Amino acid sequence: MRYVEVTGPIRELFRASLGPQAVLETHEECAHYGHDETEDLKHPPSVVVRPRTTEEVAAVMRICTAHDTPVTPIGGRTGLSGGALSICGGVGLALDRMNSIVAIDDRNLQVTVQPGVITQVLQEAVAAKGLYYPPDPSSKGSCTIGGNLAENAGGPRAVKYGVTRDFVLNLEVVLPDGSIIWTGANTLKNSTGYDLTRLIVGSEGTLAVITQAVLRLVPMPKEARLMLVPFASAERACEAVSATFRAGVTPSAMEFMERDAIAWTMRYTDGLPSQLSAEAGAYLLIEVDGDHADALMRDCETILGVMEAHDAGEVLFAEAAAEKDALWRMRRSVPVSVKAHSVYKEEDTVVPRFELPRLLAGVKAIGEQYGFQSVCYGHAGDGNLHVNIVKGDLSDAFWENELPKAIREIFQLTVSLGGTLSGEHGIGLVQRPYMDIAFNETQLALMRSIKNVFDPKGIMNPGKLLP
Amino acid sequence: MRYVEVTGPIRELFRASLGPQAVLETHEECAHYGHDETEDLKHPPSVVVRPRTTEEVAAVMRICTAHDTPVTPIGGRTGLSGGALSICGGVGLALDRMNSIVAIDDRNLQVTVQPGVITQVLQEAVAAKGLYYPPDPSSKGSCTIGGNLAENAGGPRAVKYGVTRDFVLNLEVVLPDGSIIWTGANTLKNSTGYDLTRLIVGSEGTLAVITQAVLRLVPMPKEARLMLVPFASAERACEAVSATFRAGVTPSAMEFMERDAIAWTMRYTDGLPSQLSAEAGAYLLIEVDGDHADALMRDCETILGVMEAHDAGEVLFAEAAAEKDALWRMRRSVPVSVKAHSVYKEEDTVVPRFELPRLLAGVKAIGEQYGFQSVCYGHAGDGNLHVNIVKGDLSDAFWENELPKAIREIFQLTVSLGGTLSGEHGIGLVQRPYMDIAFNETQLALMRSIKNVFDPKGIMNPGKLLP
Repeated sequence: MRYVEVTGPIRELFRASLGPQAVLETHEECAHYGHDETEDLKHPPSVVVRPRTTEEVAAVMRICTAHDTPVTPIGGRTGLSGGALSICGGVGLALDRMNSIVAIDDRNLQVTVQPGVITQVLQEAVAAKGLYYPPDPSSKGSCTIGGNLAENAGGPRAVKYGVTRDFVLNLEVVLPDGSIIWTGANTLKNSTGYDLTRLIVGSEGTLAVITQAVLRLVPMPKEARLMLVPFASAERACEAVSATFRAGVTPSAMEFMERDAIAWTMRYTDGLPSQLSAEAGAYLLIEVDGDHADALMRDCETILGVMEAHDAGEVLFAEAAAEKDALWRMRRSVPVSVKAHSVYKEEDTVVPRFELPRLLAGVKAIGEQYGFQSVCYGHAGDGNLHVNIVKGDLSDAFWENELPKAIREIFQLTVSLGGTLSGEHGIGLVQRPYMDIAFNETQLALMRSIKNVFDPKGIMNPGKLLP
Repeated sequence: MRYVEVTGPIRELFRASLGPQAVLETHEECAHYGHDETEDLKHPPSVVVRPRTTEEVAAVMRICTAHDTPVTPIGGRTGLSGGALSICGGVGLALDRMNSIVAIDDRNLQVTVQPGVITQVLQEAVAAKGLYYPPDPSSKGSCTIGGNLAENAGGPRAVKYGVTRDFVLNLEVVLPDGSIIWTGANTLKNSTGYDLTRLIVGSEGTLAVITQAVLRLVPMPKEARLMLVPFASAERACEAVSATFRAGVTPSAMEFMERDAIAWTMRYTDGLPSQLSAEAGAYLLIEVDGDHADALMRDCETILGVMEAHDAGEVLFAEAAAEKDALWRMRRSVPVSVKAHSVYKEEDTVVPRFELPRLLAGVKAIGEQYGFQSVCYGHAGDGNLHVNIVKGDLSDAFWENELPKAIREIFQLTVSLGGTLSGEHGIGLVQRPYMDIAFNETQLALMRSIKNVFDPKGIMNPGKLLP
């Protein structure tokens, strides 16, 4: 796509509307906002603007619409599909200064936030009032609510509580023409008109800019139990996943890790239980939570029965809080550890959970056929498998020319199993060439027309989501 | 709106495509499909077609598009907003023959159904496999999944489990031009393109015809406890509602009924506990469910503490299954009982739950000012209050001319409390004149444009939802 330079007179308009401090122009500043956690991609905007209020966002959008200038909303830059990369240059709309928790309403179990609030900051603020915001991507310490909404982020607790989408009651958004609207109402139920709220969630900044969100909270569960279960075979581990739900238990997390994911990560994690080894072929990290310790104990017993029936090894129960923290830190460090090990590409495949063993076996077979190694892990309870393809010694030519064919085969397999391209990372830039596998021309035409309703000039995050 | 007669040649096309049995033309047959449970409204279609397959629906839509003929999808005709009424005549697209449970997938906890399946039939079919489909509108014995999806129906269990929207994974729909598409994937998580699935849910047949749905199931909870709690004052009962959640308990149902709702209904319900009287001002019907009896007992103790702190009277625990059934039958009979008592209009207001006492007090004040009686009940845990305005001795002139002003005031109050027009009944025909209270011109223009993307000829359920 053509790189759009934002000219001096337009920059002057931004300075006049937002103040000079809010406009960043140096090479270093633009480079800072020009990458996220997607591979090693770098796409700096031509200029960065950092509004503090909804009205300032509206002013930015009016200027961009008047001058046909592309706008890429930028959150915590932890994305894994390149959604926040300014691939057309133009304006990088950084929302990091809009980071207020506007109101915690503990009478209605709701919270109103600006998009730049870091997910963990929100979780800790509501926890201080005995409340719980469950969606917790691995990057929760640095990702933001705005980005979580844009990509419909998930995380380990989605298996019991739902994804970001399931916690949104209402959104304030700025349309490309600068109009400010709310998408719904602050109610738990709503059958009043089309669901604009959930149309914005997951739209990756291609329709409008989210400037406030009203999120649902739940009471903080009082107890949790965490166990790590080793399996000789990854397939048996995956089979145990759907069997657990069929046994009538819904864990609050059910994470899968292949041996390499554990082995590479153990080195980077302090405080792990001493019994932990990385000898088994695969692991499930299983958590149950609730308000009654004895009820959780019985859930654990049911789970143990399922694990035994699937030939699990000796189960490690994390007893102390420090051990639990260490296991969770280990799980959350897997992406970073893989990245430290090698250049890689990560896919975010998702299937109905019973199909996980078939997906995993298929990914390995495709790897053998093309000659690449993969490290797989993810939210197995949701059927969401992160496939990390490791570059290692592979040639650049293979990486550029052959690998996309292999990825296409992985996605074709995923879709043939009733699944789809992305469970929680979004399509962004890097999954875009594969959208034709998930959708036919009729479906894509509908999506393009919806995009056109919101953004007739095509200035919102161009080059993302739609092929 | 103009009444569209479907001419002989078009009827002949339907007969040729669907067979003669699938086309109903007599006055009685059209009248049968011309009413639902909304007041005493009657709007028969010009002709009724009853397809059996998705392909037949597509054939109907191609004919209607070719001849600019309005189409109103018709489900169980239990709607309370007039969404299934053929107010423009044209074709009544009855989906009652598409009533197969296509597949219960107990490995993935999913079920695939045609739209004409009755909600209770689905619930019983999956219960036989130990699975649970929680959404249960009061009309569950006669409403259909297609209608539930079209209106985003709720019911008592939504407070813990969510509404219909929260159980939909994927929809097969027929677009007005006859194209058949799936809206998503059969996965628990999905960040792949715009959320067409949730755009269709709640769109009241104005965008496309739902021909199959893949729904999420959960394990059947093993235990439930049910209690009926009397209060001297309706306001105190409403205050106890939000206090329960703040105490850390999420009931599986939390229903509110004013005295008249109980008194009028008791007569029609056999098998009620003998201690039940209708002397208190208001009642909460509270259910907790789960897998562990002792944990439920402790939840009940917490709830009892909250109720006592809000001056509740003596709590009636339903012990035997027959008593529980009777109390639920009583609750579900409230709408029918009110209807038997008098002509009435029902509003479906919804607010953040802490605002319920203010909403209720405001409704009563508006009633005093205008001189009408109202009977209020509903899903208090969700903040969803059904306001039944009773005609009684009021004049037809008042009913036609003055009452709409009062309803407008009720909705203005609702919206001012952070709420909206409909929690679960939809806008349909009867709430349409009030949409300007919930949405401004910018919001409505977006919705109209989205409608136009799907239905450029405006043949899908014209005169509904959008003002």
